[in-house]
Amino acid sequence: MIKPLGDRVVIEQVEQEEKTASGIVLPDSAKEKPQEGSVVAVGTGRLTDNGERVALEVSEGDKVVYSKFAGTEIEYDGKQYLILRESDLLAVIG
Amino acid sequence: MIKPLGDRVVIEQVEQEEKTASGIVLPDSAKEKPQEGSVVAVGTGRLTDNGERVALEVSEGDKVVYSKFAGTEIEYDGKQYLILRESDLLAVIG
Amino acid sequence: MIKPLGDRVVIEQVEQEEKTASGIVLPDSAKEKPQEGSVVAVGTGRLTDNGERVALEVSEGDKVVYSKFAGTEIEYDGKQYLILRESDLLAVIG
Amino acid sequence: MIKPLGDRVVIEQVEQEEKTASGIVLPDSAKEKPQEGSVVAVGTGRLTDNGERVALEVSEGDKVVYSKFAGTEIEYDGKQYLILRESDLLAVIG
Amino acid sequence: MIKPLGDRVVIEQVEQEEKTASGIVLPDSAKEKPQEGSVVAVGTGRLTDNGERVALEVSEGDKVVYSKFAGTEIEYDGKQYLILRESDLLAVIG
Amino acid sequence: MIKPLGDRVVIEQVEQEEKTASGIVLPDSAKEKPQEGSVVAVGTGRLTDNGERVALEVSEGDKVVYSKFAGTEIEYDGKQYLILRESDLLAVIG
Amino acid sequence: MIKPLGDRVVIEQVEQEEKTASGIVLPDSAKEKPQEGSVVAVGTGRLTDNGERVALEVSEGDKVVYSKFAGTEIEYDGKQYLILRESDLLAVIG
Repeated sequence: MIKPLGDRVVIEQVEQEEKTASGIVLPDSAKEKPQEGSVVAVGTGRLTDNGERVALEVSEGDKVVYSKFAGTEIEYDGKQYLILRESDLLAVIG
Repeated sequence: MIKPLGDRVVIEQVEQEEKTASGIVLPDSAKEKPQEGSVVAVGTGRLTDNGERVALEVSEGDKVVYSKFAGTEIEYDGKQYLILRESDLLAVIG
Repeated sequence: MIKPLGDRVVIEQVEQEEKTASGIVLPDSAKEKPQEGSVVAVGTGRLTDNGERVALEVSEGDKVVYSKFAGTEIEYDGKQYLILRESDLLAVIG
Repeated sequence: MIKPLGDRVVIEQVEQEEKTASGIVLPDSAKEKPQEGSVVAVGTGRLTDNGERVALEVSEGDKVVYSKFAGTEIEYDGKQYLILRESDLLAVIG
Repeated sequence: MIKPLGDRVVIEQVEQEEKTASGIVLPDSAKEKPQEGSVVAVGTGRLTDNGERVALEVSEGDKVVYSKFAGTEIEYDGKQYLILRESDLLAVIG
Repeated sequence: MIKPLGDRVVIEQVEQEEKTASGIVLPDSAKEKPQEGSVVAVGTGRLTDNGERVALEVSEGDKVVYSKFAGTEIEYDGKQYLILRESDLLAVIG
Repeated sequence: MIKPLGDRVVIEQVEQEEKTASGIVLPDSAKEKPQEGSVVAVGTGRLTDNGERVALEVSEGDKVVYSKFAGTEIEYDGKQYLILRESDLLAVIG
C-alpha cells in the first residue's frame, strides 16, 4: 500500500513506446516533454489557507499527462512509481 | 478526449502564416511574440485560497492570443496541442 | 475586437514625438522611461483571493502613463497595440 | 491633471540644496539616501486581498521622505514629478 | 523525549540495506532518492493563515517515504533521528 | 516632527561606546551585529490582508535592539535618525 | 530585561561539550548542525494575516533544539543570548 499525502498522487508511468496506442505522442521539440501514466492512488486533498481539505480532481484509474521533470521516483514491491503533486498534472486523457 | 485540469486550457495553435487572415500579425520586435490559437477544452476553474472554484473567462471555440513561451506541447490523435494556464492568455480576439 | 482577460488592458501607444502636445515629456534619465497611450479595451477585472472580481480603475478612452518595459506588443487589423496588466499603469493624465 | 492609480502617489521632488531649510539633511553615508518632496496627488488607495480599498495615510500637501531608488520619473507640463507606491514612503515631516 | 514543534515530525531512519524487506527500493536514477523511516513523534499541527491548528495526516508508528535532502539530523540518547516538516513527507507505506 | 508611516518606527541610535552602561555589548562575532537605540516615534500600525490596522508592540521611549543592516538613515534638525520597520526590531530591553 | 518581539524567543545557548549530559549529540555530518539551548523569554506571539496573535508553543525554561545558522547573537549584562524566530525552533527536548 502506498498512500500519498495531501495533494499528491501516485502514478504508474507508461513507457514511451506504448504511447502511440493510447494516442499521446511526445514531440521531440526543445520544450518539456510531458509524460503519460495512470493514477494508482490519490491523497486526501489540498489544504486551503483556512485549513479545509479540497478533494483532488483526479481519481484512481485516470490516465493523465504530466510535466516531465516533476515528482519523485520510487520502486515498491518490484514496480516503479512516481509521486507527484496534483499541480504537476496537466490533463486527463481518454 | 483531453480534459485539462484546474485553471488550464487546451489550445489548437494557428500556424504563423495564417495570421494575416484573422488579423493578428506578430511583429518581429525583440519583445515576446504572442501566439494565436483556438480553445478546444477548458478546465474546471481556478481554486481560490478558501477552496472555491472560479470558472474560466474563456470557453471552447474562443480565439485567443497568449504568450509565446508559455505552456506544454503535446500531440494527441495525430494533432498538436498546447496546454496553458488561463493566466498565460492575454486576450480573446474575433 | 480584442477583449483583454482579467486585470489586463489594451493600449494604443502614443508615438514619442507627439508627447509634447499632451504634456508628457519622458526625460532621458537613466531610470525607466514611462510610456503614454490611450486605453482601447479593459478586462473584466482583477480576481481577489476569495474569487470576487474587482473592476479596473481605468476605462476606455483614458490617457495613461505606464512603465516602459511592461506588456506584450501585438498588431491587429494593421494597428499596433500593447496588452498590459493594470498594475503596470502608473497614472491617468488629462 | 495626473491622477495616480491604486496605492500610488505623485511627488514634486525638493532639490537637494533646499534641504537644510526644511530640516532634512541627507548624510552621504554609503546607505540609501532618502529623498524629500511634497505630495501633489494620491491614488484611490490600496486594494486588500478581499477586494476592499484602504485609503492612503498621506494627503496632498504633505511633506514626505522616501527611498532614493523608488518610483518612476515623468515630466508633465514642463515640471518634473516622481510616481511612487505608498510603501516607498518612509515618513511625513513638518 | 523529543517533541517536534508545529508541522514537524521526528523520524527514525531505516538503513538503505533493510529496504528490500519492507518493499521500498530506491532506484539509482539521477533523480532525488526518497528515504524511508518510521514516525516516532508528531507536532501539534500546521498553523493556518487565520491562526487555527490543522492536525498532521501522519501518526506515531507510520512508515513513510520522504525526500532525501529534507530535514535536520540529530542524535538523542545515542540514537539518530531526522526532524522534517510534514510537507517533506511523500507517502505512508505499509 | 517626523511621523513614520504604517509599520515603521523612528529610532535615535545609541553610539557603540555607550553600550556597556545600558548592558548591551555587541560581540564582534562574524554574525550580524544588532544595534541599540530608543524609539522616538511609531507609525499607525501594520495593515493586515483584510485592511485592518494592528498597533505596533513598541512605543515612544522604549529601548530596542534591532538588526544592523536594517532601515534608512536621515538627519533632521541636526540629529541623526534611523527609520525601520517593526519587523526589524528584535527585542525591547530595560 | 530582554523582551523579544512578536514571534521571537530569547535563548541561552548550551555549550557544545555539555551536550552529552542532556542527551543531544550533534553529529559532524555535512548537514546543518542543530544547536541546543534553553528559552529565557518568549514574544507575545505570531500575528496572523487577519491581525490576531497566536501564542508561541514554547515557554520559559523549555530546552529546545534549533537550526545552527538562525538568529542574532547579543550580549546583555555580561551573558550571551541568541534571539530567534519560533519557526527556527525544531523541537522541545527533555
